[in-house]
Amino acid sequence: MSINRKNSAIGVFDSGLGGLTVVKELIHQLPSENIVYFGDTARVPYGTKSKETIIRFSQENTMVLLDYRVKMIVVACNSSSSYAISNLERTFNIPIIGVIGPGSQKAAENTKNGRVGVIATSATIASGKYDDTIRRIDKNIKVFSKACPMFVPLVEQGWIRKKVTEDIALEYLIELKNKNVDTLILGCTHYPLLKEVIQKVMGGKVSLIDSAETVAAQVRNILEKENITRTREEKPRHRFIVSDKPQNFKDIANTFLGYSIKDVILRK
Amino acid sequence: MSINRKNSAIGVFDSGLGGLTVVKELIHQLPSENIVYFGDTARVPYGTKSKETIIRFSQENTMVLLDYRVKMIVVACNSSSSYAISNLERTFNIPIIGVIGPGSQKAAENTKNGRVGVIATSATIASGKYDDTIRRIDKNIKVFSKACPMFVPLVEQGWIRKKVTEDIALEYLIELKNKNVDTLILGCTHYPLLKEVIQKVMGGKVSLIDSAETVAAQVRNILEKENITRTREEKPRHRFIVSDKPQNFKDIANTFLGYSIKDVILRK
Repeated sequence: MSINRKNSAIGVFDSGLGGLTVVKELIHQLPSENIVYFGDTARVPYGTKSKETIIRFSQENTMVLLDYRVKMIVVACNSSSSYAISNLERTFNIPIIGVIGPGSQKAAENTKNGRVGVIATSATIASGKYDDTIRRIDKNIKVFSKACPMFVPLVEQGWIRKKVTEDIALEYLIELKNKNVDTLILGCTHYPLLKEVIQKVMGGKVSLIDSAETVAAQVRNILEKENITRTREEKPRHRFIVSDKPQNFKDIANTFLGYSIKDVILRK
Repeated sequence: MSINRKNSAIGVFDSGLGGLTVVKELIHQLPSENIVYFGDTARVPYGTKSKETIIRFSQENTMVLLDYRVKMIVVACNSSSSYAISNLERTFNIPIIGVIGPGSQKAAENTKNGRVGVIATSATIASGKYDDTIRRIDKNIKVFSKACPMFVPLVEQGWIRKKVTEDIALEYLIELKNKNVDTLILGCTHYPLLKEVIQKVMGGKVSLIDSAETVAAQVRNILEKENITRTREEKPRHRFIVSDKPQNFKDIANTFLGYSIKDVILRK
């Protein structure tokens, strides 16, 4: 493996901003790696779109990242991970990982009573991908799923701690609460921002699973296995590309990353 | 003007399904006209996107309709109407009308106390287009605007009469209610579906302005002025095209149109 390949960036894409939670964890666990992030803010959201359209958009996003000669791709979007991973693996000759596998793994390890809840967009829930993946890990685990289509607009509106947000959360989650799940997968990268209200509604004993941490750990494994971990000591470069509203991205990135981004590239 | 041109369809586009409220009114007022509708369901919503992206998408949608040799274009989307009309007029040699002008006209005629409210998506409100248009009609009218980004997801979730919908409506509308507006423009084609709850919150004396009726009247005027009104007696043809989820479009069209659609064309 050439030095060149090791220095190549990890490519991450999402339908919008949510995938920055994954970037944050990558920076934390792999501080030497170069990263290129693409957020498809012109076509966001994906969670209400069809399988075919999500696959097409995911292919196009992968090609944007390949223009930056990335060494692997992290699909940070749950809707894309649900529908497009196997298609992308067939189409592109590069390691590709999504967020469903790592999230499922973490949930399966965490549950004590064998009852796991999944909340996500309509597309992710309709795909049945979390159910399949968790049952393949442990067929005795019971999975209960619920689409929460209002959660993304709530986060984007910035209504994180409002009374109405709690009412909507209760409306969606009461079913899962009644099923007595002890582990709940936050199956959309926006949802960690609603952690507080979700925890309040579910009760303090339910573990909320955010896959970002496990995804980053798997990325590290893949880099090691493929022998493409970056070893140079110069400061790594983190680049951010969006298909719309770069200024808005800069404004909001701070909420996700905990630090501000100076340059955002607009790519139509 | 050739018979051929008269027989050409009226083209209507929207970011999604909402524009069907305009189609319904066109069918009602112009029952002989052929209509081609394009809903850009793969990239919906527009109301959260930038001016540049909305202009680009609107140009692409116009070109889809021109493939069907339409004789004029109705931009049923408020966000597109706010940002793209003058660009489309410069670019395409065909009559084009949006929904801002007709809605503003109707509101200006309706108000008695000279206080008009406008509710719409973030993009439409940010454009300031309703304010400008109403003040150009009557500079003494005071306009009060409010972006209501949760209304579209509420309609799409089907939460039309829920308690939480009323709470959100109150949150958005209390400001306008306190400004004592006697006329409220529903500046997004989704909002007429929330008429009941909006009326309840605003009180029975406030007139809700849905531009569809006025738009159809203006289309009739343009056709007459240009001498391109269809006169043939054969049954007209109404065609529906979407960029994603044709089945979903069929399922929901009934809510908007009051009758079901058999064939929907998918165009990527």
